[in-house]
Amino acid sequence: MTTGRAQAFSDGVFAVAITVLVFGLRPTGPGSLAHQLLHAWPQYFAYVVSFLTIGIMWMNHHTMLAHVTRVDRPLLVLNLLLLLGIVAIPFPTALVADHLRDQGATAATVTYGLVMIAISIGFGGLWVYVATHASALGAAVPTEALRRSILGFNGGLLAYVAGTAIAFVSALAALIIFGALAVYYLFEHLPSPVTETGPDSADD
Amino acid sequence: MTTGRAQAFSDGVFAVAITVLVFGLRPTGPGSLAHQLLHAWPQYFAYVVSFLTIGIMWMNHHTMLAHVTRVDRPLLVLNLLLLLGIVAIPFPTALVADHLRDQGATAATVTYGLVMIAISIGFGGLWVYVATHASALGAAVPTEALRRSILGFNGGLLAYVAGTAIAFVSALAALIIFGALAVYYLFEHLPSPVTETGPDSADD
Amino acid sequence: MTTGRAQAFSDGVFAVAITVLVFGLRPTGPGSLAHQLLHAWPQYFAYVVSFLTIGIMWMNHHTMLAHVTRVDRPLLVLNLLLLLGIVAIPFPTALVADHLRDQGATAATVTYGLVMIAISIGFGGLWVYVATHASALGAAVPTEALRRSILGFNGGLLAYVAGTAIAFVSALAALIIFGALAVYYLFEHLPSPVTETGPDSADD
Amino acid sequence: MTTGRAQAFSDGVFAVAITVLVFGLRPTGPGSLAHQLLHAWPQYFAYVVSFLTIGIMWMNHHTMLAHVTRVDRPLLVLNLLLLLGIVAIPFPTALVADHLRDQGATAATVTYGLVMIAISIGFGGLWVYVATHASALGAAVPTEALRRSILGFNGGLLAYVAGTAIAFVSALAALIIFGALAVYYLFEHLPSPVTETGPDSADD
Repeated sequence: MTTGRAQAFSDGVFAVAITVLVFGLRPTGPGSLAHQLLHAWPQYFAYVVSFLTIGIMWMNHHTMLAHVTRVDRPLLVLNLLLLLGIVAIPFPTALVADHLRDQGATAATVTYGLVMIAISIGFGGLWVYVATHASALGAAVPTEALRRSILGFNGGLLAYVAGTAIAFVSALAALIIFGALAVYYLFEHLPSPVTETGPDSADD
Repeated sequence: MTTGRAQAFSDGVFAVAITVLVFGLRPTGPGSLAHQLLHAWPQYFAYVVSFLTIGIMWMNHHTMLAHVTRVDRPLLVLNLLLLLGIVAIPFPTALVADHLRDQGATAATVTYGLVMIAISIGFGGLWVYVATHASALGAAVPTEALRRSILGFNGGLLAYVAGTAIAFVSALAALIIFGALAVYYLFEHLPSPVTETGPDSADD
Repeated sequence: MTTGRAQAFSDGVFAVAITVLVFGLRPTGPGSLAHQLLHAWPQYFAYVVSFLTIGIMWMNHHTMLAHVTRVDRPLLVLNLLLLLGIVAIPFPTALVADHLRDQGATAATVTYGLVMIAISIGFGGLWVYVATHASALGAAVPTEALRRSILGFNGGLLAYVAGTAIAFVSALAALIIFGALAVYYLFEHLPSPVTETGPDSADD
Repeated sequence: MTTGRAQAFSDGVFAVAITVLVFGLRPTGPGSLAHQLLHAWPQYFAYVVSFLTIGIMWMNHHTMLAHVTRVDRPLLVLNLLLLLGIVAIPFPTALVADHLRDQGATAATVTYGLVMIAISIGFGGLWVYVATHASALGAAVPTEALRRSILGFNGGLLAYVAGTAIAFVSALAALIIFGALAVYYLFEHLPSPVTETGPDSADD
C-alpha cells in the first residue's frame, strides 16, 4: 500500500473525530436558554482543548508519515492502534464537559488523561518503528534529529502522566495542562522530512 | 506539508460538518406526525441556511488555499482555528431550530451570530496571512484584487455583527440576514487564483 | 476549481450521509431484545433502500461529473443544492423506520418521496447545466445519448411523483417503489464519458 | 470510473464507520461516574473488537482493489453491498456493549455474528468477481495465490458461523472469537498485488 492511501484513510478518521466533537455542545440544566449557554463553559473549554489536540496530532501524524515513502503491514497496524486512541477522544471530552463541576470531575479528567497517555504511547510506537525500519520504509531521518524527537516524545508522555496525576487534586488544573500540552506539541514537533526542507526550513 | 493534504483534511472536515446538520431534523412536539412535520419549519430553515453557509464557505476556503503552492505551520494553525468555528456551526443551528419560536430565540440566534463572527475573523486572519506571506507561500495575488477582497471581508464581518445585534430585536430577521449573507459571499468572493483564470474568468 | 476537488468534497458528503444511516438502527419497543430486533424490520428495510439509493446516486453523480473537465461557480452551486437533498436522506429514512407501522406512515413516506423528488430535480438541473454548457466545461456528450438520458431523468422523476402519490394509499407499497427506483437508476444510467469508453464500453 | 475514486469513496465510508464507534462509549447505570466507567468494560471490549475488525477489513479491502486497474458497474455494486455490511457494524457493536451482561446477550451477539457473516460473504463475492473477471479488470493474480486466498475466505466464513453458533451458549466466548478473527485476517490476508511486490515482499 502506498503512503498516500494510508494517509488519506488516517486523514478521514482525524477529520471525522475532530468534527464529532460538536456533539458535546448542547444546552443542559435548568434556567433560560441564555443561562444554560452561559453556564456551559466547561463544554466550550473541553471542545477547544480536544479540537486543538486532535488538530495538532493530525499535523504531527502527517509529518511522521511524510518521512516514509512506503508502508508495510506492521506500520499499518501500529497506525491503526494509534487511531484507536484518537477516535476515542470525543468520549472523555464529553465526560469532562458534563462532569467538570460535579463529583465526577476526577473520574472524567483521569479518563481523559489515560486516553492521552495511550495516544502518546501510540505515537511513540509508530515513530520508533519508523526510526528502526527507516531504510526498509524509504525514510531518511538524521540521527541527531531522531534523538531529539524521542526525547520530546518522552517529555510529552511524562507531562500527560503528571497531568493525569494532578487530576486527582484539581480536574480543572489537569485540563489546563492538557490544553498546554497541545500547544507544546505545536512547537516541539518532529523534524521535517528532508524532501520538504528548503532555504526557509529552519523555522518551519 | 503540501497544500493538497491540508485541503484534503479541510475538505473532510467541511464534508462531515455539513452532513451532520441532518441530525437537527427530527419531529418533536405534540400532535400527529404530519402536524409535527408541518410545524417544524424552523428546523428546515436553519438546515438550509447553515447548509448553504458551510457549502459556500467551503468554496471560498478552496479559492483561498488555491492561491498558495505550499503551506507552513502558522498557516496550518490559522486554518485549524478557522475549522474550529466551522465545525461548531451545527451547534447554534440546532439551537435556532429548537428555539426560534420560544423565549430562547434571542439567545439561540445571538449564539449563531457569534459563531459566524468568529468564523469571519478566522477567514480574515487566514487571508491576511496569505497576503502578507505571499512570496514565501508561492502565492501570486494582484494587489488591487487583494485590497478589494479585504474590503469585502470587512463588509461581511460588519454585516454579521449587525445581524447579531438585530437578533436582540427579531430572531427571525437575524436568521434571514444570515441566509442572505451566505448568498452574498457566493457572489462577492475572492479573486480567482491566477493559475485558474482563462478567457472566461471574468464571470467565474 | 478542478473537477477533482469538487468530486472529492462530494464523495466525502456521500460517504458520511450513507454511513450515518446506521443511526436509524436501534432496538425499540417492549419485549426481549430478540423480540425487539425481529420486529424492527422496517428499520432494516428503510436502511437497505436508502443505502442503495445513496450508493447508486453516488455512482451516477460520478458519471455526471466525469463528463466535465473543469467546474465553474454555477455548477458548484447546483451541485451544492443537490447535496442539500442527499444529506437530508437519513431524516425521512428515520421517519419511515419509526412510523411504517403506525398512523404516521403516510406522513413519513410522503416526506421520503418529497426528498427524492427534490433530489431528482437537483440531478436534472445539474445535468441540464452540464449539457447546455458542455463546451465551456470541456464536456463531450453525444447529442443522442444526451436526449436519451434526459428522457430517463424525466421518467425517474415521474416515478418518484407516482410513488409519493401512492404513499397516501399504502406506505409500504411506496417504499417498495422507492427501492425499485434505486435499482432502476442502477441500469438506466447516464452515458459513460467518452474518455472512459473502450472496446467493452457497450455494457459498462 | 477509475479504481482510485471507488477506493476514495470506500475509504471515506470505512473512516466514518470506524469513527462513529465512539458513540457506543458513554457512562450508564447507577453509582458514581468512576463506578460507571469501571463497570462499562463491555463497551470498551466491543469498541476495540469492532475497531480492529473494521480497520483490518479496510486493509484487506485495499489489497483486494489494488489488484484491479479499473472498475465496472457490477464490481461497484458488489462493493456497495459489502459496504452495506461494513456500515452496519456500529449497530451490533452497540447492542453487545449494552447487553453483554443482561438477558439480551445472546440476541446481541448473534446479531453481531450475522452481520459478520454477511460481510464475509460480501468480501467473498467481491473477490470471486475480481478473480473471474481478472483480465477485463486489468488484474493479475497468480492462480496458486488465488486458490489459497479462497480457502482462507472459506475458513474465515466458517469461523464466523461457528462463533455465531457459540453465541447461543456464551456471548462472551463468541465476542472473543470475533476479536480473534480480526487478528486472523490480519495475518491470513490476500496475496499482495504484483505491482507492490519487491525483494522484501515475502513477509509484507
